Amino acid sequence: MSAEIICVGTELLLGDILNRNAQYLAQQLAQLGIPHYYQTVVGDNIARIKAAIAVAISRSQVIIFTGGLGPTPDDLTCEAIADFFGSPLEERQEILEELQRKYAARGRVMAPSNRKQALIPKGAEILPNPTGTAPGIIWQPRPDLTMFTFPGVPSEMHRMWEETAVPYLKNQGWGQEVIYSRMLRFWGVAESTLAEKVAPYLDLPNPTVAPYAGKGEVRLRISAKSANPEAAEALITPVAQEIQAIAGLDYYGADNDNLASVVGELLRQRGENLAVAESCTGGLVGQMLTEISGSSDYFWGGVISYDNSVKAGLLEVNQEDLEKFGAVSGKVAEQMAAGVRLRLGTTWGLSITGIAGPTGGTESKPVGLVYIGLAGEEGVTSFEHHFGARRGRSLIRHFSACTALDVLRRRLLLN
Amino acid sequence: MSAEIICVGTELLLGDILNRNAQYLAQQLAQLGIPHYYQTVVGDNIARIKAAIAVAISRSQVIIFTGGLGPTPDDLTCEAIADFFGSPLEERQEILEELQRKYAARGRVMAPSNRKQALIPKGAEILPNPTGTAPGIIWQPRPDLTMFTFPGVPSEMHRMWEETAVPYLKNQGWGQEVIYSRMLRFWGVAESTLAEKVAPYLDLPNPTVAPYAGKGEVRLRISAKSANPEAAEALITPVAQEIQAIAGLDYYGADNDNLASVVGELLRQRGENLAVAESCTGGLVGQMLTEISGSSDYFWGGVISYDNSVKAGLLEVNQEDLEKFGAVSGKVAEQMAAGVRLRLGTTWGLSITGIAGPTGGTESKPVGLVYIGLAGEEGVTSFEHHFGARRGRSLIRHFSACTALDVLRRRLLLN
Repeated sequence: MSAEIICVGTELLLGDILNRNAQYLAQQLAQLGIPHYYQTVVGDNIARIKAAIAVAISRSQVIIFTGGLGPTPDDLTCEAIADFFGSPLEERQEILEELQRKYAARGRVMAPSNRKQALIPKGAEILPNPTGTAPGIIWQPRPDLTMFTFPGVPSEMHRMWEETAVPYLKNQGWGQEVIYSRMLRFWGVAESTLAEKVAPYLDLPNPTVAPYAGKGEVRLRISAKSANPEAAEALITPVAQEIQAIAGLDYYGADNDNLASVVGELLRQRGENLAVAESCTGGLVGQMLTEISGSSDYFWGGVISYDNSVKAGLLEVNQEDLEKFGAVSGKVAEQMAAGVRLRLGTTWGLSITGIAGPTGGTESKPVGLVYIGLAGEEGVTSFEHHFGARRGRSLIRHFSACTALDVLRRRLLLN
Repeated sequence: MSAEIICVGTELLLGDILNRNAQYLAQQLAQLGIPHYYQTVVGDNIARIKAAIAVAISRSQVIIFTGGLGPTPDDLTCEAIADFFGSPLEERQEILEELQRKYAARGRVMAPSNRKQALIPKGAEILPNPTGTAPGIIWQPRPDLTMFTFPGVPSEMHRMWEETAVPYLKNQGWGQEVIYSRMLRFWGVAESTLAEKVAPYLDLPNPTVAPYAGKGEVRLRISAKSANPEAAEALITPVAQEIQAIAGLDYYGADNDNLASVVGELLRQRGENLAVAESCTGGLVGQMLTEISGSSDYFWGGVISYDNSVKAGLLEVNQEDLEKFGAVSGKVAEQMAAGVRLRLGTTWGLSITGIAGPTGGTESKPVGLVYIGLAGEEGVTSFEHHFGARRGRSLIRHFSACTALDVLRRRLLLN
């Protein structure tokens, strides 16, 4: 048995809206443990909706529609379903009365076009819509096939799903086995390298382990199918621990963690605090740190030393070194980190200076060259990174900020 | 002729990620005037990818894949396509060399598993990936059918689409009758207010005018369908000018403009420069300003004065005023703006201090209360804003940063 989602709406095909309904339903199906292998988006066109139904029922047994239930002529979902199965549309008195009641409650008279929403295929059950006007249906046009329809308005759909569809599906025996997941997060390692290190785990049947990557971060999702959260935990935890042991310091956190939150938590545990000096990232590290509520416990602030005059003036970077080594150098990164640490009186000073591009690169100092400085009680060090000109300004800045936080994270884990 | 999008990735079926790629491609196809009737999402499973191909090629002539091009065993798009059409996968030397070159440029050794990304169906053209590792393909397995593959990473996909796929499709005769759009951008006005002001324009047939809103910004998209850009411009420009005249200072820019770029351009024209002092935004304004290439011409830098000690120490905010009025006050905002302007020696100083929440609010100073300070030659002023606790930390910070830039923008437009 598997379920399939069909989202109806020309606005999806024009790219006017993002398909959040598909994501919501996908998450809900995963939680109920209902297999779900395909999603289809189709426009407000009766022949094409019928074509999508033909494909869907050839491979899935539960078909979930969103969209196309409104009162306007381009709302065609119910008509297409009825037509496909050769079942007439019936005006249902209880829907009509409910519609009239809702309009009256809002002090409005129901427009004649709204009668359309009282038409559902003969034999279908009504799926009540407590917040909007258009009800959905639950219908078994044949014994092994169940169709659900929902309006496209997310808030209406969510309530209808939770209040009626979920109990219905649980009553059918679903939701006994559910999928629980943990996302492990890694920085400073390539997806392919990590995948090779943990290769045997990628073939596990339960829990499954799947790699993802994007914007420099690598993730492994461990998903367990089981009867309850405790059993899932028992499946996930040993695999997570083994993978973490294999990955070592490249593993930085799980689920909703990010580098800024992990660094923050380490600083909080140690009772230490941090100041940043940012050149090419222009405030990005500070922004990431302060996105976390409670970061004032360990983040004091910093200096955005975009212009060299700020490096020299506020951070007391040596003017001669600026000229001799250039603003983008390990020497200057170190003086920035030490300077901001001194000025703000913090345990740690973290700095970034680099060439984010697209202009400003030279042969010896290409776009993507970034120096990260870290100053602490024991002194100051710097790290040279090449993020590559081709990644573009925005990603180079993102890599720079994340890598700076990662440099501090690794240092904090040392002792 | 019509195009169809197939998004490959189990993460989409689990609801782990939102299908932004489908929206991007849908918008792009609409702009090129290429009909597009179906989208399919399928997991990382070779049999099911092949089943999706069978359905897609029965009804569409251009098939656009995203996802499943990575180096790991669950990246199966190319394999499924080659297998479906009975064409062998070939290791392409030029891809392999390019991969090795990219790894070398990042100072890394290519893992053996990455060789997989050099395998493409025999006869397919390489669709270069300038920013990531996995290239895509353009392939006509038979005369009336074109397949494109793109990685699932949005930034990589966008560049590959724009730089290679669009010219290819235009060369095939697409994009002759096209939809051209201009997006007008507004800040500081509610969507409903603006929509009422420009109500007659919302019923125009060509160009059409459609309102959008999100994260405090209101947008009006003016779309014209015509044979060439000049004819579209002739339709769009008068409508845009009339709307801009109606909106006044609430209109701030068009298309790819954002508040930071518009403020930057105004500063550049005036030969002036800017420093920022950020408390609750923690570097966000600096980040937004420096996201723009060339911002070093007018942005000097600033101080992230998250902790009060930094407000007093680096910005010379009066300690008594900090205690008397509190860090979140117009008085402190003004001293922060004046202080950073003085310390960095810039034309303008812009400051933000507020309560981003979720904790830290009081009855007299609730979460969402933000003061913006602006210092210039003529003196310093501050502005009180209430962004509302319900918006949440991240949006309150976003509103604060955008509103600060907007305060400066309106000031720069005065004279």
